[in-house]
Amino acid sequence: MEKYKIVIDTLGSDKGPEEILKGAKRILEENSRANLVLVGDEELINSFNFPRERVEIIDAKETVTNYDNPVEAFYKKPNVSIFKAIERASKEDSAGIITAGNSGALMVASLRYLLDDKRTRPCMAAILPNMQHTFTCLVDTGASIDVGPLQLVEFAHLGSDFMKKLYKIESPRVGLLSNGAEPTKGNKLVKEAHKLLAEEKEINFVGNIEGNKTLSGLCDVLVCDGFAGNQVLKNSEGMAVNLITEMVKFSKKTGNASIMELVGYLMKTYDFESLGAGILLGAKKLVLKCRGSSGAEAIYNASKILINIAENKTLYE
Amino acid sequence: MEKYKIVIDTLGSDKGPEEILKGAKRILEENSRANLVLVGDEELINSFNFPRERVEIIDAKETVTNYDNPVEAFYKKPNVSIFKAIERASKEDSAGIITAGNSGALMVASLRYLLDDKRTRPCMAAILPNMQHTFTCLVDTGASIDVGPLQLVEFAHLGSDFMKKLYKIESPRVGLLSNGAEPTKGNKLVKEAHKLLAEEKEINFVGNIEGNKTLSGLCDVLVCDGFAGNQVLKNSEGMAVNLITEMVKFSKKTGNASIMELVGYLMKTYDFESLGAGILLGAKKLVLKCRGSSGAEAIYNASKILINIAENKTLYE
Repeated sequence: MEKYKIVIDTLGSDKGPEEILKGAKRILEENSRANLVLVGDEELINSFNFPRERVEIIDAKETVTNYDNPVEAFYKKPNVSIFKAIERASKEDSAGIITAGNSGALMVASLRYLLDDKRTRPCMAAILPNMQHTFTCLVDTGASIDVGPLQLVEFAHLGSDFMKKLYKIESPRVGLLSNGAEPTKGNKLVKEAHKLLAEEKEINFVGNIEGNKTLSGLCDVLVCDGFAGNQVLKNSEGMAVNLITEMVKFSKKTGNASIMELVGYLMKTYDFESLGAGILLGAKKLVLKCRGSSGAEAIYNASKILINIAENKTLYE
Repeated sequence: MEKYKIVIDTLGSDKGPEEILKGAKRILEENSRANLVLVGDEELINSFNFPRERVEIIDAKETVTNYDNPVEAFYKKPNVSIFKAIERASKEDSAGIITAGNSGALMVASLRYLLDDKRTRPCMAAILPNMQHTFTCLVDTGASIDVGPLQLVEFAHLGSDFMKKLYKIESPRVGLLSNGAEPTKGNKLVKEAHKLLAEEKEINFVGNIEGNKTLSGLCDVLVCDGFAGNQVLKNSEGMAVNLITEMVKFSKKTGNASIMELVGYLMKTYDFESLGAGILLGAKKLVLKCRGSSGAEAIYNASKILINIAENKTLYE
């Protein structure tokens, strides 16, 4: 049975390295096929007494914060865990990397170490549950904030290829996020991208998708710049959290405990937390970006996603 | 008792002019203080037998579609109902106008007939219910798609003034929609606007607001360009509709009828439909933009909002 060597950046989570290391421990306990490379504070990592034969340790104690310029950091800080981790992941024996660190730093190091020669720039995808009970691949979710129309076309290709391979969709429907369904609607960027996508022969372009249809299942791939994608992702999650909070309050207020059953069902169906990991498309290795607020559970879930994708032999051939 | 003359553009709804005219009939029946100016197909309007002393009719049968260029239409189509309606609303005796017509056309005509001399460009606001059970003014919701940082500062002023006057908030908290809470987060537009807003003395700027906090009640005014605002508005509504649809299905499947009580409560609390009317800020008269899908009910609700705001003497003095 094949073994998967997964690189984990143990720094970068708001919850601290201990939480990430707890997640790493659980991965080793529950998945005998996973071996790990743990990047971070060696002393702290050693204190967890991981089995030596399954764990490699790389000492790197620096981080890139949200206030750093990631490009500057790449050249000036030699010992940043996310950079070291991505460099290590580029080696042949690794299946991929999991990090909850800074998105900008992730992009800079991925461009340096993991760029697929056929692609100009990777993008960050989220796989979101939709109303048809299938999945929609949202690209980009925040890795590329200021982009041009050609990059949106690139995102469409990356998302389309991913959905073909992962979900065996023959001709994924690609939609473009806009403020109206008509081709004349959109900001300058979207209007130009619309024209280019309509002419793109390898893309099954289904036109503009409005904000209220993002998770309707009208398309398999939803293309937008990273600023807009970040809004879609966070706004959908925020609304779900808001409504579920209201349901719990209503259940308590009215003493109707059966509503908690509904809450459980909705949280399982629309599990944004476990699906919250972003997947970098257009890189040579699997890169899973967990949220900054990730704890042990999120890291463990990310390892499951990573192994699932890695097992899909056709995906990164 | 004061009478309010409300101009209604009877064309522009996807549901046809008959629906708008039914709404007009209800306004007259249920609000003795409202008189109307109905703009549209005179023959059709006459077939409704409105009381002559309360209704003025302007014959204008043309419309601006989503495929027209609104500026071209303004100069080439002399008989467009939304243009005629806004021109009529600019007269002293009118309290404002209600339309479900084209947003671009509305902006063009408002710039021509209703521009407040103190402001550079109006913006479209939506008043949304938030988790604190107060309201958040979202500006812009789609009237100005491609804008510069100075326009976002202008939107902040318009939204802030509106919330001061309508809700008597002394110093409304103004947030800027971004992809991260730190001042360094955002696209080029947002980063520049952040700097300007931080220096703006008359604005109580509370910094960046992320997509999952849009309706959290952390700010009274949420500023963004029209493309992003349209996403927030439609995405929030779309998620609410999706989750409520799931609740109804769950209620049927499990035979748990009490869940419908919860659905009723949520729909009342987060009534996006009745709050769906956009309000043009920075214009000399009240301009309410209903959705393209508006029927009789939406037009009637808009008239109530318009009269409520008009009664607030301090608002448009």
